[in-house]
Amino acid sequence: MTGDRAHNEFPFHNILILGMGMMGASLAMALRAVPGFNGHIHGVVRSARSVETIAGYGLADEIFQCRVPEEIDRLDVSGYDLIVLGVPPHSIIEMLPRFPEFKGVISDMSSTRREVHQAFAARPDLNFVGSHPMCGSENQGPAHGFADLFHNHLCLLLTDVGERKVHVDSLERVQEFWERLQMRTFRLTVSQHDEILAYLSHGPHVLSSLLALWADAHKLSNVSTHSAPLPITGGGFKGMSRIAGSNPEMWTDIMFTNADNILHALKQFRDMLDEVILDFERRDRADWTNWFRRARQARNHLCGIEEEL
Amino acid sequence: MTGDRAHNEFPFHNILILGMGMMGASLAMALRAVPGFNGHIHGVVRSARSVETIAGYGLADEIFQCRVPEEIDRLDVSGYDLIVLGVPPHSIIEMLPRFPEFKGVISDMSSTRREVHQAFAARPDLNFVGSHPMCGSENQGPAHGFADLFHNHLCLLLTDVGERKVHVDSLERVQEFWERLQMRTFRLTVSQHDEILAYLSHGPHVLSSLLALWADAHKLSNVSTHSAPLPITGGGFKGMSRIAGSNPEMWTDIMFTNADNILHALKQFRDMLDEVILDFERRDRADWTNWFRRARQARNHLCGIEEEL
Repeated sequence: MTGDRAHNEFPFHNILILGMGMMGASLAMALRAVPGFNGHIHGVVRSARSVETIAGYGLADEIFQCRVPEEIDRLDVSGYDLIVLGVPPHSIIEMLPRFPEFKGVISDMSSTRREVHQAFAARPDLNFVGSHPMCGSENQGPAHGFADLFHNHLCLLLTDVGERKVHVDSLERVQEFWERLQMRTFRLTVSQHDEILAYLSHGPHVLSSLLALWADAHKLSNVSTHSAPLPITGGGFKGMSRIAGSNPEMWTDIMFTNADNILHALKQFRDMLDEVILDFERRDRADWTNWFRRARQARNHLCGIEEEL
Repeated sequence: MTGDRAHNEFPFHNILILGMGMMGASLAMALRAVPGFNGHIHGVVRSARSVETIAGYGLADEIFQCRVPEEIDRLDVSGYDLIVLGVPPHSIIEMLPRFPEFKGVISDMSSTRREVHQAFAARPDLNFVGSHPMCGSENQGPAHGFADLFHNHLCLLLTDVGERKVHVDSLERVQEFWERLQMRTFRLTVSQHDEILAYLSHGPHVLSSLLALWADAHKLSNVSTHSAPLPITGGGFKGMSRIAGSNPEMWTDIMFTNADNILHALKQFRDMLDEVILDFERRDRADWTNWFRRARQARNHLCGIEEEL
C-alpha cells in the first residue's frame, strides 16, 4: 500500500507551518525527507531567534516573523493549500477570530480538542480538519526537532467541528498527509478524543506531577536524597515521574482546554484509590496477587504488549 | 580510591548465593567479573530447571538443589564466609527459624526490611547485615541475569537488626563487598529505609498498577484501544505504567512486608489528590503553571536531574 502511495502525488504542495517549535520544526524536517514531496514549506515564527534557528537548519523556503495572535491579520496566506498550526491551543483560540480568509485546508497538532474545535465552529468559512499526532518530547524549541518524530506513531484525526462533520475529501487528504509521514491514523470525534485522552495522557500527567510533589514533601525522603551518593529513586520512580518534567505552560494549557474530562477522570482515580486503601487495610494476600495480575494485564492491553505466559 | 581497593584482598572468599533468580544469577556473574575475586561461588536453587540454567552459564562452582524453606535445615553451610540470600522476604522469614548454625556473615537483597530484620532479631546467633541493592528488571529468572546489573547503582545498607546495631566490622565488609561490585552505598536504619521506600518505590508501584486498572476500566479508552492501529497511549502513559508489568507475587510480598508505611503513604497521596481536585475546580490558571513548575523541581531533585534554566 505504501509502495503504491509513493507514486501518487503528495496531497499538498504549498505548506505553511504556523508556529515552529519542536513539533513544527520536526514537521518541516519530516516533509523535506518524505519521498514524493517537492512542494514549498514556509514557516511562521514569533521570535527573531527562532527565525535564525529555522534559517540555520534550512528548514523552510521562506520564514515570516509574526506575533501570534496579535499580528495574525497581517499575514498573507493566499497561495498555500495547507496550513498546519503548530502553536498551542490557547493561541489558536485567540487568533481565530482575526484569522485571514483562506481557501485551503487547515490542520493542527493540538493535544486537546474541544475548545479548538469550538473556535473553528465560529469560523465556518475555514476548512478545518483537526489532527493530533501522538508524539513529542520533553524538549522544547525548534533546535530539538528531528525528522523521524512522527515515524510509526499514531495520529488521531478528528471527524467533526462543532455540530458539523468535516469535509470528507479534506479529511482524506489530511489523513494521506500524515500517513506519508509514516504515521498510522485513527478517526474519532472531538468528544471521544478528549474523554479518552483524559485517561491515557492528561490525567496521568497530573498524577505524575503529583507523585513528584508527594514524595518530595516527605521529609525523610527529601533529606536522605540530599545525603545519598546517588538518588534513592529507582527506575520505577524515574519512569513514573518523567513526564512531570514537561513544559509547565503547555500542560496548564492542556489542563484548561480539557478541564471537565480531566476532573472527572481524576475523581474516578481518587475513588479507586480509596477502594485500594480500604482493601489493603483488610490485607487479604491472595486478592492482592490477583490485583497486581489484573493491573499487568490492563497495562499490557493498553500499551499493546503481548503477555508472556 | 578504587585503584587502592583493587590491590586489597576481596572481603569474602567462599560465597554461597541462596536463591539464584535474576538478582542471584547477576550477583554470580558480577563476582566472576570483579578484579581481585578468585574465591568460590556456590549456589542454591529450588528447581532442576534452575540447576540446568546455572550450570549451563557456568555461574557457580557447585550448585545445590534445595527447597527453601522446607529443606533448609539439611543444607551444609560450614565453609562459607558469606551467604547472600536471593530469595524473597517471605521465604527468608519462613526459613530463618530452621536456618542452620553459621559463623560467617549473612546478607540479602530484599526490597523491604522490617519483617526480615525482625526474623533475624530472633536469631541473634546469626551475623546478619541487611543490604538492599537498588537495581532490578521486570524480567525474572536466572536466564535474565547480567553481570553489570549492580554497576553504578545504589546499595542501601541497614545498620540495625531489631534492637541491636549490626557488628561494625561486618557492616564494613559487606559495604566493601558491594562497592567492589561497583555499587555506591548509603547507610540507614530499617525504619528509615521502609518509610522512604514507601514513597520512592512501593507506593509508586501501587499507583502505577492502579493507573493501568483505572484507564482500562474506562470503557471508551478500552474499546478504542482494540480498534486503533497502534496503542493510543503515548510515552507518558507507557513510562508511568511500566512497573505495573512487574511480578505480581513479588509485589504482593513487598506490600505485605511494608504494609503500614505503604498505607500511610497512599493515604497521603489520596489527601493531596483531593486538594488537587478542589484547586482544579477553582481553575486559577497562574497557580497551575506554578504547580507544574514545582512538580518539575521536585522530580528533578528526587531523580538527581540538573534543572535546565
